[in-house]
Amino acid sequence: MTDPRPHNAYVPGYKPAHIKNHTWRTAENSAPHLIPVLQSKAQTNPNTKLLDCGAGPGSISVSLAKYIPQGEVTATDLSEEVIQRAATLAETEGVTNVKVQAASIYELPFEDDSFDVVHAHQVLCHLDQPLEALRSMLRVCKPGGVVALREVDMRMWSFWPESEPLKQFHKLITLVMGANGGYPNIGPRLVSLAMQAGIPRERVQASMGTWCYSTREEREVWGGTMRDRVQAGEMRKVALERGLGWGEEDMDKMAQAWDEWIEAEDGCFGCLHGEVLITK
Amino acid sequence: MTDPRPHNAYVPGYKPAHIKNHTWRTAENSAPHLIPVLQSKAQTNPNTKLLDCGAGPGSISVSLAKYIPQGEVTATDLSEEVIQRAATLAETEGVTNVKVQAASIYELPFEDDSFDVVHAHQVLCHLDQPLEALRSMLRVCKPGGVVALREVDMRMWSFWPESEPLKQFHKLITLVMGANGGYPNIGPRLVSLAMQAGIPRERVQASMGTWCYSTREEREVWGGTMRDRVQAGEMRKVALERGLGWGEEDMDKMAQAWDEWIEAEDGCFGCLHGEVLITK
Repeated sequence: MTDPRPHNAYVPGYKPAHIKNHTWRTAENSAPHLIPVLQSKAQTNPNTKLLDCGAGPGSISVSLAKYIPQGEVTATDLSEEVIQRAATLAETEGVTNVKVQAASIYELPFEDDSFDVVHAHQVLCHLDQPLEALRSMLRVCKPGGVVALREVDMRMWSFWPESEPLKQFHKLITLVMGANGGYPNIGPRLVSLAMQAGIPRERVQASMGTWCYSTREEREVWGGTMRDRVQAGEMRKVALERGLGWGEEDMDKMAQAWDEWIEAEDGCFGCLHGEVLITK
Repeated sequence: MTDPRPHNAYVPGYKPAHIKNHTWRTAENSAPHLIPVLQSKAQTNPNTKLLDCGAGPGSISVSLAKYIPQGEVTATDLSEEVIQRAATLAETEGVTNVKVQAASIYELPFEDDSFDVVHAHQVLCHLDQPLEALRSMLRVCKPGGVVALREVDMRMWSFWPESEPLKQFHKLITLVMGANGGYPNIGPRLVSLAMQAGIPRERVQASMGTWCYSTREEREVWGGTMRDRVQAGEMRKVALERGLGWGEEDMDKMAQAWDEWIEAEDGCFGCLHGEVLITK
Protein backbone atom coordinates (compact mmCIF):
# COMPACT_ATOMS: atom_id res chain seq x y z
CA MET A 1 0.00 0.00 0.00
CA THR A 2 2.96 2.38 -0.22
CA ASP A 3 2.24 5.39 -2.37
CA PRO A 4 5.20 6.64 -4.37
CA ARG A 5 3.82 10.11 -5.01
CA PRO A 6 5.03 13.01 -2.91
CA HIS A 7 1.91 14.22 -1.13
CA ASN A 8 1.35 17.65 0.31
CA ALA A 9 2.03 18.30 3.97
CA TYR A 10 -0.49 19.68 6.46
CA VAL A 11 -0.30 23.35 5.54
CA PRO A 12 -1.92 25.06 8.54
CA GLY A 13 0.95 23.73 10.66
CA TYR A 14 1.08 22.95 14.35
CA LYS A 15 1.51 26.34 16.06
CA PRO A 16 0.16 26.66 19.65
CA ALA A 17 -2.89 28.77 18.71
CA HIS A 18 -3.80 26.29 16.00
CA ILE A 19 -3.54 23.42 18.44
CA LYS A 20 -5.72 25.37 20.90
CA ASN A 21 -8.42 25.69 18.25
CA HIS A 22 -8.19 22.00 17.38
CA THR A 23 -8.50 21.08 21.05
CA TRP A 24 -11.85 22.91 21.22
CA ARG A 25 -13.21 20.25 18.88
CA THR A 26 -15.23 17.42 20.38
CA ALA A 27 -17.44 14.60 19.11
CA GLU A 28 -20.46 16.77 19.95
CA ASN A 29 -19.43 19.88 18.01
CA SER A 30 -17.40 18.21 15.25
CA ALA A 31 -18.71 14.68 14.65
CA PRO A 32 -22.40 14.71 15.65
CA HIS A 33 -23.30 12.56 12.61
CA LEU A 34 -21.14 9.75 14.00
CA ILE A 35 -22.51 9.73 17.56
CA PRO A 36 -25.70 7.72 16.82
CA VAL A 37 -23.57 5.16 14.93
CA LEU A 38 -21.30 4.71 17.96
CA GLN A 39 -24.23 4.54 20.37
CA SER A 40 -25.75 1.80 18.25
CA LYS A 41 -22.46 -0.10 17.90
CA ALA A 42 -21.76 0.19 21.65
CA GLN A 43 -25.00 -1.78 22.13
CA THR A 44 -24.53 -4.43 19.46
CA ASN A 45 -20.73 -4.74 19.51
CA PRO A 46 -19.15 -3.37 22.71
CA ASN A 47 -15.64 -4.10 21.40
CA THR A 48 -16.03 -1.65 18.53
CA LYS A 49 -12.69 -0.59 17.07
CA LEU A 50 -12.49 2.95 15.69
CA LEU A 51 -9.66 4.42 13.64
CA ASP A 52 -9.33 8.21 13.66
CA CYS A 53 -7.22 9.51 10.76
CA GLY A 54 -5.49 12.90 10.90
CA ALA A 55 -6.50 13.16 14.54
CA GLY A 56 -4.17 16.05 15.42
CA PRO A 57 -4.07 16.66 19.18
CA GLY A 58 -6.82 14.07 19.56
CA SER A 59 -9.65 15.94 21.25
CA ILE A 60 -12.22 14.41 18.87
CA SER A 61 -10.63 10.94 19.24
CA VAL A 62 -10.76 11.13 23.03
CA SER A 63 -14.31 12.45 22.90
CA LEU A 64 -15.41 9.67 20.52
CA ALA A 65 -13.76 7.03 22.77
CA LYS A 66 -16.22 7.90 25.55
CA TYR A 67 -19.08 6.57 23.38
CA ILE A 68 -17.45 3.13 23.09
CA PRO A 69 -16.08 2.63 26.64
CA GLN A 70 -15.49 -1.08 26.06
CA GLY A 71 -14.15 -0.51 22.57
CA GLU A 72 -10.93 1.08 21.39
CA VAL A 73 -9.89 4.16 19.44
CA THR A 74 -6.66 4.24 17.44
CA ALA A 75 -5.73 7.86 16.73
CA THR A 76 -3.28 8.51 13.89
CA ASP A 77 -1.65 11.63 12.52
CA LEU A 78 1.19 12.37 10.14
CA SER A 79 3.02 14.17 12.94
CA GLU A 80 4.59 11.99 15.65
CA GLU A 81 4.87 15.01 17.94
CA VAL A 82 1.23 16.04 17.61
CA ILE A 83 -0.21 12.56 17.99
CA GLN A 84 1.70 12.18 21.26
CA ARG A 85 -0.40 15.09 22.53
CA ALA A 86 -3.46 12.94 21.87
CA ALA A 87 -1.95 10.29 24.16
CA THR A 88 -1.32 12.93 26.82
CA LEU A 89 -4.84 14.32 26.46
CA ALA A 90 -6.37 10.86 26.87
CA GLU A 91 -4.27 10.30 29.98
CA THR A 92 -5.19 13.71 31.43
CA GLU A 93 -8.89 13.01 30.88
CA GLY A 94 -8.61 9.50 32.30
CA VAL A 95 -9.70 7.93 29.01
CA THR A 96 -7.95 4.58 28.81
CA ASN A 97 -9.24 3.22 25.49
CA VAL A 98 -7.27 5.47 23.13
CA LYS A 99 -3.96 4.45 21.60
CA VAL A 100 -1.95 6.56 19.19
CA GLN A 101 0.29 5.90 16.22
CA ALA A 102 1.98 8.20 13.68
CA ALA A 103 0.80 7.28 10.18
CA SER A 104 -0.02 8.72 6.79
CA ILE A 105 -3.67 8.37 5.82
CA TYR A 106 -2.43 7.10 2.43
CA GLU A 107 -0.35 4.33 3.99
CA LEU A 108 -2.30 3.20 7.02
CA PRO A 109 -0.23 0.53 8.76
CA PHE A 110 -3.20 -1.78 9.37
CA GLU A 111 -4.58 -4.93 7.80
CA ASP A 112 -7.52 -4.82 5.41
CA ASP A 113 -10.92 -4.98 7.16
CA SER A 114 -9.54 -4.14 10.63
CA PHE A 115 -11.86 -1.45 12.03
CA ASP A 116 -15.59 -1.15 12.64
CA VAL A 117 -15.47 2.61 12.16
CA VAL A 118 -12.93 4.73 10.28
CA HIS A 119 -13.22 8.47 10.82
CA ALA A 120 -11.61 11.62 9.43
CA HIS A 121 -12.52 15.18 10.29
CA GLN A 122 -11.28 18.05 8.07
CA VAL A 123 -8.51 15.92 6.66
CA LEU A 124 -9.36 15.24 3.02
CA CYS A 125 -9.77 18.98 2.32
CA HIS A 126 -6.04 19.44 3.00
CA LEU A 127 -4.89 16.58 0.74
CA ASP A 128 -3.93 16.53 -2.91
CA GLN A 129 -5.39 13.04 -3.38
CA PRO A 130 -8.60 12.87 -1.34
CA LEU A 131 -9.96 9.94 -3.36
CA GLU A 132 -6.83 7.89 -2.62
CA ALA A 133 -7.14 8.79 1.05
CA LEU A 134 -10.78 7.66 1.10
CA ARG A 135 -9.83 4.40 -0.65
CA SER A 136 -7.20 3.83 2.02
CA MET A 137 -9.77 4.42 4.77
CA LEU A 138 -12.21 2.03 3.06
CA ARG A 139 -9.50 -0.63 2.82
CA VAL A 140 -9.00 -0.85 6.57
CA CYS A 141 -12.75 -0.71 7.31
CA LYS A 142 -14.56 -4.02 7.90
CA PRO A 143 -17.34 -4.96 5.46
CA GLY A 144 -20.52 -3.60 7.04
CA GLY A 145 -18.43 -1.04 8.95
CA VAL A 146 -18.77 2.72 8.61
CA VAL A 147 -16.41 5.31 7.15
CA ALA A 148 -17.33 8.76 8.46
CA LEU A 149 -16.16 12.03 6.93
CA ARG A 150 -16.71 15.66 7.75
CA GLU A 151 -15.10 18.20 5.43
CA VAL A 152 -15.31 21.94 4.98
CA ASP A 153 -16.77 24.09 2.24
CA MET A 154 -14.46 27.05 2.79
CA ARG A 155 -16.75 29.37 0.84
CA MET A 156 -19.35 29.04 3.58
CA TRP A 157 -18.24 31.56 6.20
CA SER A 158 -21.14 33.40 7.76
CA PHE A 159 -20.08 36.04 10.27
CA TRP A 160 -20.97 39.29 11.94
CA PRO A 161 -19.83 42.03 12.23
CA GLU A 162 -18.42 42.01 8.72
CA SER A 163 -15.41 44.11 7.78
CA GLU A 164 -13.33 44.41 4.64
CA PRO A 165 -10.14 42.95 6.22
CA LEU A 166 -12.09 39.89 7.41
CA LYS A 167 -13.55 39.40 3.93
CA GLN A 168 -10.03 39.64 2.52
CA PHE A 169 -8.80 37.15 5.14
CA HIS A 170 -11.50 34.72 4.03
CA LYS A 171 -10.32 34.98 0.42
CA LEU A 172 -6.70 34.57 1.44
CA ILE A 173 -7.12 31.51 3.65
CA THR A 174 -9.09 29.75 0.90
CA LEU A 175 -6.40 30.57 -1.66
CA VAL A 176 -3.65 29.34 0.66
CA MET A 177 -5.45 26.06 1.18
CA GLY A 178 -5.98 25.59 -2.56
CA ALA A 179 -2.46 26.74 -3.44
CA ASN A 180 -1.09 23.87 -1.39
CA GLY A 181 -2.96 21.22 -3.27
CA GLY A 182 -5.97 20.97 -1.01
CA TYR A 183 -9.67 20.97 -1.90
CA PRO A 184 -11.14 23.86 0.12
CA ASN A 185 -14.66 23.22 -1.19
CA ILE A 186 -14.85 19.44 -0.94
CA GLY A 187 -17.71 19.46 1.63
CA PRO A 188 -20.68 19.12 -0.74
CA ARG A 189 -18.75 16.64 -2.93
CA LEU A 190 -18.41 13.85 -0.37
CA VAL A 191 -21.30 11.80 -1.82
CA SER A 192 -19.67 12.13 -5.21
CA LEU A 193 -16.28 11.13 -3.79
CA ALA A 194 -17.74 8.03 -2.14
CA MET A 195 -19.37 7.02 -5.43
CA GLN A 196 -16.05 7.53 -7.25
CA ALA A 197 -14.55 5.12 -4.71
CA GLY A 198 -17.06 2.54 -5.89
CA ILE A 199 -19.67 2.84 -3.14
CA PRO A 200 -23.30 2.56 -4.31
CA ARG A 201 -25.35 5.70 -3.57
CA GLU A 202 -27.69 3.89 -1.20
CA ARG A 203 -24.75 3.11 1.10
CA VAL A 204 -23.97 6.80 1.57
CA GLN A 205 -25.87 8.92 4.08
CA ALA A 206 -25.24 12.64 3.69
CA SER A 207 -25.76 15.47 6.12
CA MET A 208 -24.36 18.93 6.78
CA GLY A 209 -22.80 20.22 9.99
CA THR A 210 -21.68 23.55 11.40
CA TRP A 211 -19.35 25.19 13.80
CA CYS A 212 -20.60 28.25 15.62
CA TYR A 213 -18.46 30.61 17.70
CA SER A 214 -20.31 33.39 19.48
CA THR A 215 -19.56 33.65 23.22
CA ARG A 216 -16.53 35.63 24.37
CA GLU A 217 -14.59 32.40 24.98
CA GLU A 218 -15.54 30.99 21.58
CA ARG A 219 -14.61 34.22 19.82
CA GLU A 220 -11.21 34.10 21.50
CA VAL A 221 -10.65 30.53 20.29
CA TRP A 222 -11.69 31.15 16.70
CA GLY A 223 -10.62 34.76 16.24
CA GLY A 224 -7.38 34.14 18.14
CA THR A 225 -6.43 31.23 15.92
CA MET A 226 -7.21 33.13 12.75
CA ARG A 227 -5.30 36.19 14.02
CA ASP A 228 -2.25 34.10 14.87
CA ARG A 229 -2.28 32.33 11.51
CA VAL A 230 -2.19 35.58 9.56
CA GLN A 231 0.10 37.35 12.03
CA ALA A 232 2.89 34.83 12.32
CA GLY A 233 1.75 31.44 11.08
CA GLU A 234 2.42 29.26 8.08
CA MET A 235 -0.45 30.99 6.28
CA ARG A 236 1.36 34.33 6.27
CA LYS A 237 4.54 32.67 5.05
CA VAL A 238 2.77 30.87 2.20
CA ALA A 239 0.87 34.02 1.18
CA LEU A 240 4.11 36.03 0.93
CA GLU A 241 6.21 33.31 -0.71
CA ARG A 242 3.64 32.56 -3.38
CA GLY A 243 2.70 36.18 -4.01
CA LEU A 244 -1.02 35.60 -3.54
CA GLY A 245 -1.72 39.33 -3.66
CA TRP A 246 -1.60 40.43 -0.03
CA GLY A 247 1.40 42.12 1.61
CA GLU A 248 2.65 42.39 5.20
CA GLU A 249 0.54 45.48 5.88
CA ASP A 250 -2.65 43.88 4.54
CA MET A 251 -2.11 40.90 6.80
CA ASP A 252 -1.45 43.09 9.82
CA LYS A 253 -4.82 44.74 9.16
CA MET A 254 -6.47 41.32 9.00
CA ALA A 255 -4.91 40.34 12.34
CA GLN A 256 -6.19 43.58 13.87
CA ALA A 257 -9.65 42.97 12.41
CA TRP A 258 -9.81 39.58 14.17
CA ASP A 259 -8.90 41.29 17.45
CA GLU A 260 -11.75 43.74 16.89
CA TRP A 261 -14.11 40.89 16.07
CA ILE A 262 -13.19 39.16 19.32
CA GLU A 263 -14.10 42.35 21.18
CA ALA A 264 -17.47 42.73 19.40
CA GLU A 265 -20.06 41.57 21.93
CA ASP A 266 -22.51 40.71 19.12
CA GLY A 267 -19.84 38.81 17.18
CA CYS A 268 -20.89 35.52 15.63
CA PHE A 269 -19.13 33.14 13.26
CA GLY A 270 -20.51 30.06 11.56
CA CYS A 271 -19.35 27.76 8.82
CA LEU A 272 -20.69 24.75 6.96
CA HIS A 273 -19.31 21.24 6.56
CA GLY A 274 -20.39 18.33 4.44
CA GLU A 275 -20.76 15.01 6.26
CA VAL A 276 -21.15 11.43 5.07
CA LEU A 277 -21.56 8.04 6.69
CA ILE A 278 -20.47 5.36 4.22
CA THR A 279 -21.41 1.75 4.92
CA LYS A 280 -18.76 -0.47 3.36
CA MET B 1 -49.98 47.74 18.62
CA THR B 2 -51.15 48.64 15.11
CA ASP B 3 -48.30 49.54 12.84
CA PRO B 4 -49.08 52.29 10.34
CA ARG B 5 -46.26 51.45 7.95
CA PRO B 6 -47.00 49.40 4.86
CA HIS B 7 -44.96 46.24 5.32
CA ASN B 8 -43.78 43.93 2.58
CA ALA B 9 -45.77 40.83 1.72
CA TYR B 10 -44.38 37.30 1.74
CA VAL B 11 -42.61 37.36 -1.60
CA PRO B 12 -42.01 33.66 -2.30
CA GLY B 13 -45.77 33.25 -2.43
CA TYR B 14 -47.90 30.23 -1.76
CA LYS B 15 -47.67 28.12 -4.92
CA PRO B 16 -48.13 24.34 -4.54
CA ALA B 17 -44.44 23.45 -4.99
CA HIS B 18 -43.47 26.04 -2.43
CA ILE B 19 -45.98 24.65 0.04
CA LYS B 20 -44.62 21.14 -0.66
CA ASN B 21 -41.13 22.31 0.27
CA HIS B 22 -42.42 23.99 3.43
CA THR B 23 -44.26 20.83 4.43
CA TRP B 24 -40.95 18.92 4.37
CA ARG B 25 -39.90 21.02 7.32
CA THR B 26 -40.15 19.52 10.79
CA ALA B 27 -38.97 20.40 14.28
CA GLU B 28 -36.11 17.95 13.80
CA ASN B 29 -34.75 19.37 10.54
CA SER B 30 -35.75 23.01 11.02
CA ALA B 31 -35.88 23.81 14.75
CA PRO B 32 -33.42 21.44 16.45
CA HIS B 33 -32.18 24.23 18.72
CA LEU B 34 -35.66 24.54 20.22
CA ILE B 35 -36.25 20.82 20.93
CA PRO B 36 -34.20 20.64 24.18
CA VAL B 37 -36.05 23.74 25.43
CA LEU B 38 -39.42 22.09 24.81
CA GLN B 39 -38.29 18.80 26.36
CA SER B 40 -37.22 20.69 29.46
CA LYS B 41 -40.43 22.76 29.61
CA ALA B 42 -42.60 19.65 29.08
CA GLN B 43 -41.08 18.37 32.32
CA THR B 44 -41.29 21.52 34.42
CA ASN B 45 -44.42 23.09 32.93
CA PRO B 46 -46.59 20.59 31.02
CA ASN B 47 -49.05 23.33 30.04
CA THR B 48 -46.41 25.17 28.01
CA LYS B 49 -47.94 27.57 25.49
CA LEU B 50 -46.03 28.08 22.25
CA LEU B 51 -46.70 30.70 19.59
CA ASP B 52 -45.42 29.96 16.09
CA CYS B 53 -45.21 33.08 13.92
CA GLY B 54 -45.26 32.89 10.11
CA ALA B 55 -46.05 29.21 10.41
CA GLY B 56 -47.10 28.72 6.77
CA PRO B 57 -48.66 25.29 6.23
CA GLY B 58 -47.74 24.42 9.81
CA SER B 59 -45.54 21.36 9.50
CA ILE B 60 -43.04 22.76 12.02
CA SER B 61 -45.87 23.87 14.35
CA VAL B 62 -47.45 20.40 14.30
CA SER B 63 -44.07 18.79 14.78
CA LEU B 64 -43.22 21.08 17.73
CA ALA B 65 -46.63 20.36 19.31
CA LYS B 66 -45.64 16.70 19.73
CA TYR B 67 -42.94 17.77 22.20
CA ILE B 68 -45.48 19.47 24.49
CA PRO B 69 -48.39 17.00 24.35
CA GLN B 70 -50.11 18.57 27.36
CA GLY B 71 -49.29 22.09 26.17
CA GLU B 72 -50.66 24.08 23.24
CA VAL B 73 -49.31 25.53 20.02
CA THR B 74 -50.88 28.58 18.40
CA ALA B 75 -49.82 28.77 14.77
CA THR B 76 -50.17 32.12 13.01
CA ASP B 77 -49.54 33.32 9.48
CA LEU B 78 -50.39 36.40 7.48
CA SER B 79 -52.39 34.25 5.06
CA GLU B 80 -55.74 32.97 6.30
CA GLU B 81 -55.79 30.39 3.51
CA VAL B 82 -52.37 28.97 4.31
CA ILE B 83 -52.83 28.83 8.05
CA GLN B 84 -56.00 26.78 7.53
CA ARG B 85 -53.74 24.15 5.97
CA ALA B 86 -51.91 23.98 9.29
CA ALA B 87 -55.24 23.17 10.95
CA THR B 88 -55.89 20.47 8.35
CA LEU B 89 -52.38 19.04 8.76
CA ALA B 90 -52.79 18.85 12.55
CA GLU B 91 -56.12 17.05 12.09
CA THR B 92 -54.66 14.63 9.53
CA GLU B 93 -51.79 13.78 11.86
CA GLY B 94 -54.09 13.44 14.86
CA VAL B 95 -52.36 16.26 16.71
CA THR B 96 -55.02 17.92 18.86
CA ASN B 97 -53.03 20.64 20.62
CA VAL B 98 -52.56 23.03 17.69
CA LYS B 99 -54.87 25.95 17.02
CA VAL B 100 -54.46 28.41 14.18
CA GLN B 101 -55.12 32.11 13.68
CA ALA B 102 -54.33 34.52 10.84
CA ALA B 103 -52.17 37.36 12.16
CA SER B 104 -49.36 39.71 11.22
CA ILE B 105 -46.17 39.18 13.21
CA TYR B 106 -46.09 42.94 13.72
CA GLU B 107 -49.56 43.06 15.23
CA LEU B 108 -49.90 39.83 17.16
CA PRO B 109 -53.45 39.75 18.59
CA PHE B 110 -52.33 38.51 22.01
CA GLU B 111 -51.79 40.06 25.43
CA ASP B 112 -48.32 40.95 26.66
CA ASP B 113 -46.52 38.06 28.40
CA SER B 114 -48.88 35.36 27.07
CA PHE B 115 -46.59 32.58 25.80
CA ASP B 116 -43.82 30.45 27.28
CA VAL B 117 -42.16 30.06 23.88
CA VAL B 118 -42.42 32.27 20.80
CA HIS B 119 -40.94 30.83 17.63
CA ALA B 120 -40.28 32.00 14.07
CA HIS B 121 -38.51 30.06 11.36
CA GLN B 122 -37.30 31.88 8.22
CA VAL B 123 -39.70 34.74 8.78
CA LEU B 124 -37.60 37.78 9.74
CA CYS B 125 -35.43 37.39 6.61
CA HIS B 126 -38.50 38.18 4.49
CA LEU B 127 -39.53 41.30 6.43
CA ASP B 128 -38.60 44.94 5.99
CA GLN B 129 -38.64 45.55 9.76
CA PRO B 130 -37.14 42.46 11.43
CA LEU B 131 -36.32 44.37 14.62
CA GLU B 132 -39.95 45.46 14.98
CA ALA B 133 -41.05 41.88 14.39
CA LEU B 134 -38.69 40.61 17.09
CA ARG B 135 -39.94 43.29 19.51
CA SER B 136 -43.46 42.12 18.82
CA MET B 137 -42.47 38.50 19.53
CA LEU B 138 -40.75 39.56 22.75
CA ARG B 139 -43.84 41.49 23.84
CA VAL B 140 -46.07 38.42 23.87
CA CYS B 141 -43.40 36.22 25.49
CA LYS B 142 -43.61 35.71 29.27
CA PRO B 143 -40.66 36.96 31.36
CA GLY B 144 -38.35 33.96 31.65
CA GLY B 145 -39.83 32.54 28.46
CA VAL B 146 -37.89 31.85 25.27
CA VAL B 147 -38.01 33.52 21.86
CA ALA B 148 -36.48 31.19 19.25
CA LEU B 149 -35.39 32.29 15.80
CA ARG B 150 -33.84 30.50 12.85
CA GLU B 151 -33.00 32.63 9.82
CA VAL B 152 -31.11 32.13 6.60
CA ASP B 153 -27.82 33.45 5.34
CA MET B 154 -28.68 33.22 1.65
CA ARG B 155 -25.04 33.48 0.63
CA MET B 156 -24.39 30.06 2.18
CA TRP B 157 -25.47 27.65 -0.55
CA SER B 158 -23.17 24.66 -0.80
CA PHE B 159 -24.10 22.28 -3.59
CA TRP B 160 -22.86 19.69 -6.02
CA PRO B 161 -22.79 19.28 -8.97
CA GLU B 162 -22.26 22.96 -9.65
CA SER B 163 -23.34 24.53 -12.94
CA GLU B 164 -23.39 28.09 -14.22
CA PRO B 165 -27.22 28.33 -14.39
CA LEU B 166 -27.49 27.17 -10.75
CA LYS B 167 -24.93 29.77 -9.67
CA GLN B 168 -26.94 32.39 -11.57
CA PHE B 169 -30.12 31.14 -9.88
CA HIS B 170 -28.48 31.59 -6.49
CA LYS B 171 -27.63 35.20 -7.32
CA LEU B 172 -31.11 35.87 -8.63
CA ILE B 173 -33.05 34.44 -5.70
CA THR B 174 -30.93 36.46 -3.26
CA LEU B 175 -31.53 39.63 -5.26
CA VAL B 176 -35.27 38.99 -5.43
CA MET B 177 -35.42 38.53 -1.66
CA GLY B 178 -33.46 41.73 -1.07
CA ALA B 179 -35.33 43.69 -3.72
CA ASN B 180 -38.53 43.11 -1.82
CA GLY B 181 -37.29 44.61 1.40
CA GLY B 182 -36.07 41.43 3.06
CA TYR B 183 -32.75 40.71 4.74
CA PRO B 184 -31.37 37.65 2.90
CA ASN B 185 -28.24 37.54 5.08
CA ILE B 186 -29.75 38.09 8.51
CA GLY B 187 -28.67 34.66 9.87
CA PRO B 188 -25.36 35.63 11.52
CA ARG B 189 -26.88 38.92 12.79
CA LEU B 190 -29.47 37.43 15.13
CA VAL B 191 -27.36 37.98 18.26
CA SER B 192 -26.92 41.58 17.17
CA LEU B 193 -30.66 41.93 16.50
CA ALA B 194 -31.54 40.58 19.94
CA MET B 195 -29.15 43.06 21.56
CA GLN B 196 -30.72 45.89 19.53
CA ALA B 197 -34.04 44.81 21.00
CA GLY B 198 -32.57 45.42 24.46
CA ILE B 199 -31.68 41.85 25.41
CA PRO B 200 -28.38 41.48 27.35
CA ARG B 201 -25.83 39.29 25.53
CA GLU B 202 -25.84 36.63 28.25
CA ARG B 203 -29.53 35.98 27.60
CA VAL B 204 -28.87 35.04 23.98
CA GLN B 205 -27.68 31.58 23.02
CA ALA B 206 -26.47 31.33 19.42
CA SER B 207 -26.04 28.31 17.19
CA MET B 208 -26.04 27.51 13.49
CA GLY B 209 -28.23 25.01 11.67
CA THR B 210 -28.42 23.46 8.23
CA TRP B 211 -30.71 21.92 5.72
CA CYS B 212 -29.33 19.10 3.63
CA TYR B 213 -31.02 17.59 0.58
CA SER B 214 -29.28 14.63 -1.00
CA THR B 215 -31.49 11.57 -1.53
CA ARG B 216 -33.60 11.34 -4.67
CA GLU B 217 -36.73 12.31 -2.71
CA GLU B 218 -34.97 15.25 -1.06
CA ARG B 219 -33.57 16.45 -4.38
CA GLU B 220 -37.09 16.38 -5.83
CA VAL B 221 -38.40 18.48 -2.95
CA TRP B 222 -35.65 21.10 -3.05
CA GLY B 223 -34.83 21.13 -6.76
CA GLY B 224 -38.50 20.90 -7.69
CA THR B 225 -39.41 23.92 -5.59
CA MET B 226 -36.54 25.97 -6.97
CA ARG B 227 -37.40 24.94 -10.54
CA ASP B 228 -41.05 25.90 -10.09
CA ARG B 229 -40.18 29.25 -8.56
CA VAL B 230 -38.03 30.29 -11.50
CA GLN B 231 -40.26 28.62 -14.09
CA ALA B 232 -43.62 30.07 -13.16
CA GLY B 233 -43.48 31.46 -9.63
CA GLU B 234 -43.51 34.90 -8.05
CA MET B 235 -39.71 34.93 -8.29
CA ARG B 236 -39.79 34.92 -12.10
CA LYS B 237 -42.40 37.67 -12.13
CA VAL B 238 -40.41 39.89 -9.75
CA ALA B 239 -37.16 39.29 -11.66
CA LEU B 240 -38.77 40.37 -14.94
CA GLU B 241 -40.78 43.29 -13.55
CA ARG B 242 -37.82 44.78 -11.73
CA GLY B 243 -35.31 44.14 -14.50
CA LEU B 244 -32.85 42.35 -12.26
CA GLY B 245 -30.73 41.31 -15.23
CA TRP B 246 -32.05 37.89 -16.21
CA GLY B 247 -34.50 37.27 -19.08
CA GLU B 248 -37.04 34.55 -19.85
CA GLU B 249 -34.44 32.39 -21.59
CA ASP B 250 -31.96 32.64 -18.70
CA MET B 251 -34.63 31.54 -16.28
CA ASP B 252 -35.68 28.64 -18.50
CA LYS B 253 -32.05 27.48 -18.38
CA MET B 254 -32.07 27.72 -14.59
CA ALA B 255 -35.24 25.63 -14.41
CA GLN B 256 -33.65 23.01 -16.67
CA ALA B 257 -30.48 23.03 -14.53
CA TRP B 258 -32.56 22.20 -11.45
CA ASP B 259 -34.10 19.26 -13.32
CA GLU B 260 -30.61 18.04 -14.19
CA TRP B 261 -29.52 18.46 -10.56
CA ILE B 262 -32.48 16.35 -9.42
CA GLU B 263 -31.30 13.61 -11.80
CA ALA B 264 -27.67 13.73 -10.59
CA GLU B 265 -27.29 10.72 -8.32
CA ASP B 266 -24.41 12.39 -6.45
CA GLY B 267 -26.37 15.64 -6.04
CA CYS B 268 -26.14 17.31 -2.67
CA PHE B 269 -27.42 20.67 -1.41
CA GLY B 270 -26.77 22.31 1.93
CA CYS B 271 -27.36 25.74 3.38
CA LEU B 272 -26.65 27.52 6.63
CA HIS B 273 -28.98 29.24 9.09
CA GLY B 274 -28.33 31.33 12.15
CA GLU B 275 -30.24 30.33 15.28
CA VAL B 276 -30.83 32.04 18.62
CA LEU B 277 -32.65 31.21 21.82
CA ILE B 278 -33.44 34.43 23.65
CA THR B 279 -34.50 34.25 27.30
CA LYS B 280 -36.76 37.22 28.02
